[in-house]
Amino acid sequence: MVANTTGEIFKVTTFGLSHGKALGATIDGCPAGLNLSNEDIQNELNKRRPGTSNLTTSRDEKDKVEILSGIFNGMTDGTPITAIIFNKDQRSKNYDNLKNNPRPGHGDFCWREKFGNYDYRGGGRGSGRVTIGHVIGGAVSKKLLQQHNITTTAHVTSIHNIHSTKKFTLNTIKENITKNNVRCADLEVATLMEDEILKLKERGDSTGGKVEIIIDNVPVGLGQPVFDKIDGDFAKALMNIGAVKAVEVGCGIESSTLTGHEMNDEYYIEDNKIQTKTNNAGGIVGGMTNGMPIILKISVKPTPSVSGIQNTVNLEKRENSTIEIEGRHDPCICPRITTVAEAVCNMVLADHMIRAGYIHPDKIN
Amino acid sequence: MVANTTGEIFKVTTFGLSHGKALGATIDGCPAGLNLSNEDIQNELNKRRPGTSNLTTSRDEKDKVEILSGIFNGMTDGTPITAIIFNKDQRSKNYDNLKNNPRPGHGDFCWREKFGNYDYRGGGRGSGRVTIGHVIGGAVSKKLLQQHNITTTAHVTSIHNIHSTKKFTLNTIKENITKNNVRCADLEVATLMEDEILKLKERGDSTGGKVEIIIDNVPVGLGQPVFDKIDGDFAKALMNIGAVKAVEVGCGIESSTLTGHEMNDEYYIEDNKIQTKTNNAGGIVGGMTNGMPIILKISVKPTPSVSGIQNTVNLEKRENSTIEIEGRHDPCICPRITTVAEAVCNMVLADHMIRAGYIHPDKIN
Amino acid sequence: MVANTTGEIFKVTTFGLSHGKALGATIDGCPAGLNLSNEDIQNELNKRRPGTSNLTTSRDEKDKVEILSGIFNGMTDGTPITAIIFNKDQRSKNYDNLKNNPRPGHGDFCWREKFGNYDYRGGGRGSGRVTIGHVIGGAVSKKLLQQHNITTTAHVTSIHNIHSTKKFTLNTIKENITKNNVRCADLEVATLMEDEILKLKERGDSTGGKVEIIIDNVPVGLGQPVFDKIDGDFAKALMNIGAVKAVEVGCGIESSTLTGHEMNDEYYIEDNKIQTKTNNAGGIVGGMTNGMPIILKISVKPTPSVSGIQNTVNLEKRENSTIEIEGRHDPCICPRITTVAEAVCNMVLADHMIRAGYIHPDKIN
Amino acid sequence: MVANTTGEIFKVTTFGLSHGKALGATIDGCPAGLNLSNEDIQNELNKRRPGTSNLTTSRDEKDKVEILSGIFNGMTDGTPITAIIFNKDQRSKNYDNLKNNPRPGHGDFCWREKFGNYDYRGGGRGSGRVTIGHVIGGAVSKKLLQQHNITTTAHVTSIHNIHSTKKFTLNTIKENITKNNVRCADLEVATLMEDEILKLKERGDSTGGKVEIIIDNVPVGLGQPVFDKIDGDFAKALMNIGAVKAVEVGCGIESSTLTGHEMNDEYYIEDNKIQTKTNNAGGIVGGMTNGMPIILKISVKPTPSVSGIQNTVNLEKRENSTIEIEGRHDPCICPRITTVAEAVCNMVLADHMIRAGYIHPDKIN
Repeated sequence: MVANTTGEIFKVTTFGLSHGKALGATIDGCPAGLNLSNEDIQNELNKRRPGTSNLTTSRDEKDKVEILSGIFNGMTDGTPITAIIFNKDQRSKNYDNLKNNPRPGHGDFCWREKFGNYDYRGGGRGSGRVTIGHVIGGAVSKKLLQQHNITTTAHVTSIHNIHSTKKFTLNTIKENITKNNVRCADLEVATLMEDEILKLKERGDSTGGKVEIIIDNVPVGLGQPVFDKIDGDFAKALMNIGAVKAVEVGCGIESSTLTGHEMNDEYYIEDNKIQTKTNNAGGIVGGMTNGMPIILKISVKPTPSVSGIQNTVNLEKRENSTIEIEGRHDPCICPRITTVAEAVCNMVLADHMIRAGYIHPDKIN
Repeated sequence: MVANTTGEIFKVTTFGLSHGKALGATIDGCPAGLNLSNEDIQNELNKRRPGTSNLTTSRDEKDKVEILSGIFNGMTDGTPITAIIFNKDQRSKNYDNLKNNPRPGHGDFCWREKFGNYDYRGGGRGSGRVTIGHVIGGAVSKKLLQQHNITTTAHVTSIHNIHSTKKFTLNTIKENITKNNVRCADLEVATLMEDEILKLKERGDSTGGKVEIIIDNVPVGLGQPVFDKIDGDFAKALMNIGAVKAVEVGCGIESSTLTGHEMNDEYYIEDNKIQTKTNNAGGIVGGMTNGMPIILKISVKPTPSVSGIQNTVNLEKRENSTIEIEGRHDPCICPRITTVAEAVCNMVLADHMIRAGYIHPDKIN
Repeated sequence: MVANTTGEIFKVTTFGLSHGKALGATIDGCPAGLNLSNEDIQNELNKRRPGTSNLTTSRDEKDKVEILSGIFNGMTDGTPITAIIFNKDQRSKNYDNLKNNPRPGHGDFCWREKFGNYDYRGGGRGSGRVTIGHVIGGAVSKKLLQQHNITTTAHVTSIHNIHSTKKFTLNTIKENITKNNVRCADLEVATLMEDEILKLKERGDSTGGKVEIIIDNVPVGLGQPVFDKIDGDFAKALMNIGAVKAVEVGCGIESSTLTGHEMNDEYYIEDNKIQTKTNNAGGIVGGMTNGMPIILKISVKPTPSVSGIQNTVNLEKRENSTIEIEGRHDPCICPRITTVAEAVCNMVLADHMIRAGYIHPDKIN
Repeated sequence: MVANTTGEIFKVTTFGLSHGKALGATIDGCPAGLNLSNEDIQNELNKRRPGTSNLTTSRDEKDKVEILSGIFNGMTDGTPITAIIFNKDQRSKNYDNLKNNPRPGHGDFCWREKFGNYDYRGGGRGSGRVTIGHVIGGAVSKKLLQQHNITTTAHVTSIHNIHSTKKFTLNTIKENITKNNVRCADLEVATLMEDEILKLKERGDSTGGKVEIIIDNVPVGLGQPVFDKIDGDFAKALMNIGAVKAVEVGCGIESSTLTGHEMNDEYYIEDNKIQTKTNNAGGIVGGMTNGMPIILKISVKPTPSVSGIQNTVNLEKRENSTIEIEGRHDPCICPRITTVAEAVCNMVLADHMIRAGYIHPDKIN
């Protein structure tokens, strides 16, 4: 059933997979009059690209995006915006054994059972490459949100057993994450993280980690109780990114151990602006934004493609078998997943900004 | 914008709030031919009711549900099923101070800013009482899922700092949770939990906890990548329950500290049935069910209504103020939230079972 | 599948049928702050009621509506509005023969094949009584549109072979239709129509007719090309009213016989207001409103319940059979259908007014 | 707001316009395992192409379509299918005067008011060329329906004042329409129609006409009362094709002049198959298919682009002005609109076939 579109008004439909001709996305519902160019989208895509450091896969994807529709005179015209990237540099021959032997930890088995004729090469539509579509949609929503000074920043807070616990201001975070390959705000811990990843890469293993997302300058009242609360939409959008196994808002899991007096964020007013003294809620109360920064956290599992022999089944012969995954694999996707996390959060925000009447549905200004 | 309906095919729309005339829900998209009676819904509602033990509020809600449409000859007829409950036993006079002074930790401030004319009495549409609608929808989906032997069981695994760590079989869990007031599988720990809740109640405080949900007998292939994966839908449904601040699937947060070799669930076949040796994934891989039990966990924050003076603002006068909440309040909603968690998971399952072609959209059998 | 909800933002879900406990509707997405009372809805319902003249059925339905939710301080509060009517005065015993013998011209056969356990009494969910839900939704949208001085007026232009061809101003139409039982603007022709209906009633037959709907004061730009154009939404809404077999916009069918020079409506500007010299388009061009009055026409087939023996089949025995319909039946539903036509058009307008940014999604003003 | 997607499960999103880089469509929700190739889509597109006869515009569009995603091993794989066509042969310079002077009969004025930055060249997203997307979606649904032997045939029944009144069998219609340029079943009348069109072309005028669509072999029970009846969805889909001003089902407008006894289609059973003796209903009763052939009719207005000076307004200067349209224009789009009408009907059918459980949502067979 319908599965490849996200959003109620600002809708993004993505298509394409790892080894087909092209990947892309169509954005419908973006108001007219917004400046938008190939560069706006290319910048975001470059951040998610592997092969930018020795930490990631060696697959070199010089993905060049092209906007095919929806732009006139350098601005959106209210019609659907389709942007596309053609696949290159694919080595299909690594995947023949996948046809009948599902890889543990990947969705192969489910895809095969569900659709039958499923493109198993490189993980098909389950491949991380599919997030190119997410990032295209995210880039357009980011431009829209910039009009309202809303910023979304994702940074890595832990990798394997290495945790970054120091607190930084948002500005420091924004600055520091560009200065290292793991997008961590703590430059010292970043070095430890890089070493850990390389160590695991050498022994053909992988690891997970945690990412925090901070959204700044949100207006009050985004979210639609009771079934389209904005924390629910963030949870869905983030959980839907492959490899995410947990989503937290504000204190998250820690909330379960607190008392009411410890958890409650008290209100106060200063310079006619209403804020809360603490922000344990993470900017969302009753399913709606209260104006404080939104704090979200995701837990990312280790990428399943690791070296060595793993036990599986042969789906044709219906008997136990083994599989050994070759090829190029990312030991830790957390640094790259930050761009995708920002993208999906931005799509949720753009949609809710229009739904709450903060952005005109047809034309900006 | 549209906010009070959940589901794509099996759709549930709820209405009503804490202090209005009635609460209820309309279920559209339930196939015809399903046995359904007032009792089926009443049983689920009785589980969520406060006043059943000294642990909860003293508000006595003998909520009697009545199905108004959608049933013919004791079975669903394919038309919308509306069930309704009339509100009784409301003490409005406790809420006058809420009109202009938002309670910390509740959604009052957001509701007021967003809608203006919002019914603040008892938390209005943000009240926990609103989950009556969720449970009505959950009851109907539960009947539908029973046809496929799918069961959904929620149990409390921690309250404040008291954790239940022992592992039990699903059958033991189903049995033990009916034997204590906190719906905990570990009868000894249950006693400790009850004491903790009473202690907090006496001093006018509240606390949170964690709940685990286990879903059994699911077929393979539920879920629709890439934007309607079933873990995403579970995450949204659970996060949307008031007071939930985190959702985990399988290992959840722990996944972030594992390596690929530790996390991957290997496949094997036995008696022609394909399973995995471990279930760190929690039954969902690539966004789809793989046939193993689905394991979900939610973290619930402490209910915000606690005794004592709290700081807030007066929205009319635009100045700092205080508020003191009186009345009857639940010190810990985790035991009751289990019924709501089961309900929303069942609604997601019913919807996906139809979307994946396992249940006929118009009539069963 | 989902079938009982109309609208994208301003959503109306209806429930109930001819012989069940109650009928009603839930309106979700109506902004807060709109004055709304039981009377607003009751007034519209009274117009659709049979038994108000000797022209219609003798079924006396004193349908008293009650709003159960969504109102606070006499205004909408942004939460779902549910209004309900309990069924009375039902004579079930007339319908036993319908169980296995579908009536020609009604949906019985389709309902039975599709759902199996379908409530055949009085036509079940296919009964005209179901339009109570439409009218409830229409009443709420009408209040919302009144804020923008948008009016929707439906009047009968033909019954059987009797046509009203004189042109009247909209004000005259609005006035005259309240002065006769067939809601015709031409008072002389109205008398002829009434005689024709009574004649047909006496011989146990029925007839159809045409209704024109005029919508005034619409802003420019309602409608969303290419798949949610407003003429498409009007066509769907009107065709979905039982018994409607054709929908026209502006010139409608006549357009097919014109040349481009004859059809085109030229623009001109006067007092800074842009209008067209003619209005063959009926106020909608390129799928969007251009500010001129919207003109729609529907063709209504004769109600199928007529006296005498009709040929049908026995679905149980799978053999040819006959049926003779007894009971009370409306010889011509055109006068009553005007209220339903206005209702569905108003729901479409309310939805598009919000979608185009003319009405704030959360609160008016 | 969301406007460029049609369908609930079988969803088609189109993008692109007359003078941009490319046009195309993304089909989501098509089950896996369906044979599909570029040829399948190219065949349908060739039918809608102008320049195939002296009756149409001289714009030569050798539109070559390419499928970019959603196919594996020559069959659909359950992921979104995107097909695209690059625009060529565009003469932009003809459109400069359109920037501020809306053409009568076209949507220019509405597009401009609604979106501001609207691509006016060649009618932009309001251009007939946009139906390329409709036909792509229609081609895929046609393949899906072929599995169930459902056929959709559109033929021209009148042009200007020339009517084809003879009745033909469906097989004769399918055969004859390929033998002339106006797609008329009556070969003699076809010649008269061709002469009429050429006559109007020479004098720089245009005309409208009527098209009938016959759908054969439909199963019983497609359609979802009360708001997603299949006649309502056909009405919306057809009315949404540019230039359509009326939609009829079965007898259509004629129904309004009949009595109940004349209109009702009586049931009978023969060889265990239930049919009706007449088919005035056009195959749809109570909003659902009853198994008889579906008969739909559309009335098409004359294309607005005609020669000579027309009165309009200058939107910048806010004063009356004139416009003279040059360039290449189709004197009558009825022959070409038949392909688009078939396409949109097929998309509605594919969607309802899945919604009614006749086609599996994930994989065929």
